[in-house]
Amino acid sequence: MNVTVRGRTRYYRTVTFDRARNAVLLVEQRWLPHDFKIVAARNFRETAAAIRDMIVRGAGAIGATAAYGLAQGALAFRGSDLEKFTSHLEIVYRTLRAARPTAVDPVNALIQVLIATAKGETVAEQQSLALAAAEEFADENVRHCEAIGRHGVKLIRDGMKILTHCNAGWLAFVDIGTATAPMYAAQAQGKKFHVFCDETRPRSQGATLTAWELAQQKISHQVIADNAAGYLMQRGEIDLVIVGSDRTLGRTGEVTNKIGTYTKAVLAKRHGIPFYVAIPLSTIDWHLKSGFDIPIEERHESEVLGAWGVPANSEFKIQNAKLKYVRVANPASGARNPGFDVTPPELITGIITPAGIFKPKDLWRRRRELAFTD
Amino acid sequence: MNVTVRGRTRYYRTVTFDRARNAVLLVEQRWLPHDFKIVAARNFRETAAAIRDMIVRGAGAIGATAAYGLAQGALAFRGSDLEKFTSHLEIVYRTLRAARPTAVDPVNALIQVLIATAKGETVAEQQSLALAAAEEFADENVRHCEAIGRHGVKLIRDGMKILTHCNAGWLAFVDIGTATAPMYAAQAQGKKFHVFCDETRPRSQGATLTAWELAQQKISHQVIADNAAGYLMQRGEIDLVIVGSDRTLGRTGEVTNKIGTYTKAVLAKRHGIPFYVAIPLSTIDWHLKSGFDIPIEERHESEVLGAWGVPANSEFKIQNAKLKYVRVANPASGARNPGFDVTPPELITGIITPAGIFKPKDLWRRRRELAFTD
Repeated sequence: MNVTVRGRTRYYRTVTFDRARNAVLLVEQRWLPHDFKIVAARNFRETAAAIRDMIVRGAGAIGATAAYGLAQGALAFRGSDLEKFTSHLEIVYRTLRAARPTAVDPVNALIQVLIATAKGETVAEQQSLALAAAEEFADENVRHCEAIGRHGVKLIRDGMKILTHCNAGWLAFVDIGTATAPMYAAQAQGKKFHVFCDETRPRSQGATLTAWELAQQKISHQVIADNAAGYLMQRGEIDLVIVGSDRTLGRTGEVTNKIGTYTKAVLAKRHGIPFYVAIPLSTIDWHLKSGFDIPIEERHESEVLGAWGVPANSEFKIQNAKLKYVRVANPASGARNPGFDVTPPELITGIITPAGIFKPKDLWRRRRELAFTD
Repeated sequence: MNVTVRGRTRYYRTVTFDRARNAVLLVEQRWLPHDFKIVAARNFRETAAAIRDMIVRGAGAIGATAAYGLAQGALAFRGSDLEKFTSHLEIVYRTLRAARPTAVDPVNALIQVLIATAKGETVAEQQSLALAAAEEFADENVRHCEAIGRHGVKLIRDGMKILTHCNAGWLAFVDIGTATAPMYAAQAQGKKFHVFCDETRPRSQGATLTAWELAQQKISHQVIADNAAGYLMQRGEIDLVIVGSDRTLGRTGEVTNKIGTYTKAVLAKRHGIPFYVAIPLSTIDWHLKSGFDIPIEERHESEVLGAWGVPANSEFKIQNAKLKYVRVANPASGARNPGFDVTPPELITGIITPAGIFKPKDLWRRRRELAFTD
């Protein structure tokens, strides 16, 4: 997407590859929205560290980063001994795979690149195939998001107010995003609409990343406390909900997403408001048979007990862009911090995929279509 | 309740009156849980400002503060001209009434004091009646909370996990609290239970005030993000919800409370979890005929866009107790910030009042009982 920093507008993907420097270039997401910069991971270990340390986050974005990291590792190999090259590549693969052990997108990305690479007969051939496969993974991710936008844009009518939760925007993918794709497509068609961004405690991805994205694209929006969505629905101020997903079960239609998604789905159902989930195909889990089998990460209690922000003065004017953690909660109290929840299919109006919009229960019946489409 | 600060334990009410200084003494709630101190509002304008600026907050506490503020204003009058005194009192009344528009307690408190005051035949008599009425309002509030505890304690069984929202604890009243009254009574009976405190964004009264109260009274508890309650209910980890109310409509059974309460009620209904609202009689509004007539305060967007906390280091250890505001959200984004929502009677299992536990729809039928009991 285009990003304007200090008056200069330029097009960025979250992840790109610099062939000349053999470097993976990443939007440094940890300082957003207070500072926008691109950092270079100069070897595959730095790339793995960037994933682990959450310089880059979001399903599609870490998938593409891992893919480029594998190509980067392949290209760094000197010599023509195919056996040594293969051993080297295995180390690269293991290092990148270990960076975020629970995520499924990097695994899919790495396997896709490895399969393509193995088709080469020389080291040089395999090196160039690895890079081509990584580029293809990133490009496919962009095409998937564009397709989600084409299907989802039909849901957005002029004057609508749309609720979204967490960040399923371009920062979480390579470009365009999933939940945001229909919004960007609607904007391109000249439709007027307003987006409410749940702040999405405890990590506030809605208030930081989604709000920043929408502001950059000049889409009318406001941040709300997670508590306020119910009130706005009662008052008829929300017409549509679109969220992303970290893992959608192809067999059951259950949607895993950031904690709080389930609550918004329950509210939307009560108020008869359409609730859509936008996902690339790589987010569908065709194996698990029940949402109860999805491991739900319990994160550090410090996230709930405090907040990250930049210091402001008594008129709420920002003093500097250096992020600080403040303890909000009672110092003597602890917290529970589940990171995700599972929304059952009966609360979901439709799943927006690159192949079209489906009822969650229909994913399994349409699985061939979904697995093979890009 | 007893408060232990730096090893010293003492009994406090949230609001008391210092006759010698003609001052209203308040627990300064804005610095809690990081600093506990008592501040003096030295005239009725300072008392109104203390309500407006949320030095004191919570239905009963601002009711008692308004009552004392009226007495304070009355006592500050010099002279014996009853007509001038009455004009003066009207200014005091208007100033205090305007401090917080959504709550009904201050209005009820002010009217109760005004009616008592009017029985005096001289300025001096009216002045002393005003103070007596204010003291009676505060004492009655304490008796009401004790009675709520006696009725509500039957709902708490050994081993229960209880969810509460915002702060309806003793800090929100004069003593004991409403939502917390059954908990303190259950503790006194030796029952074991665990409380989940919704952090209650944007002002975080659950994470700060309720968590502090429960920690002070050694009640097992954890803070959760407002987003997490639905997940815990899905997992069977919540057995009971008890919240307070800022205004309950006697004619309809609709409950106004801190933003997010409605959402928790919708979730509880879906999961078949009992949802109770604990209120003193002064919180009942017998006049309004619909929840849509309740004015909902829209507060400053800075509350949603940032957080107040004390600086901590990279290991999350608190560095000093000086509260700082940090901007969390994207600097170029705005926010919507409704302060309250209205929960309809069909989502409420029962209203715990000083006169017993009633179905919300039965309040009107039992109105004589409710209006005249203390």
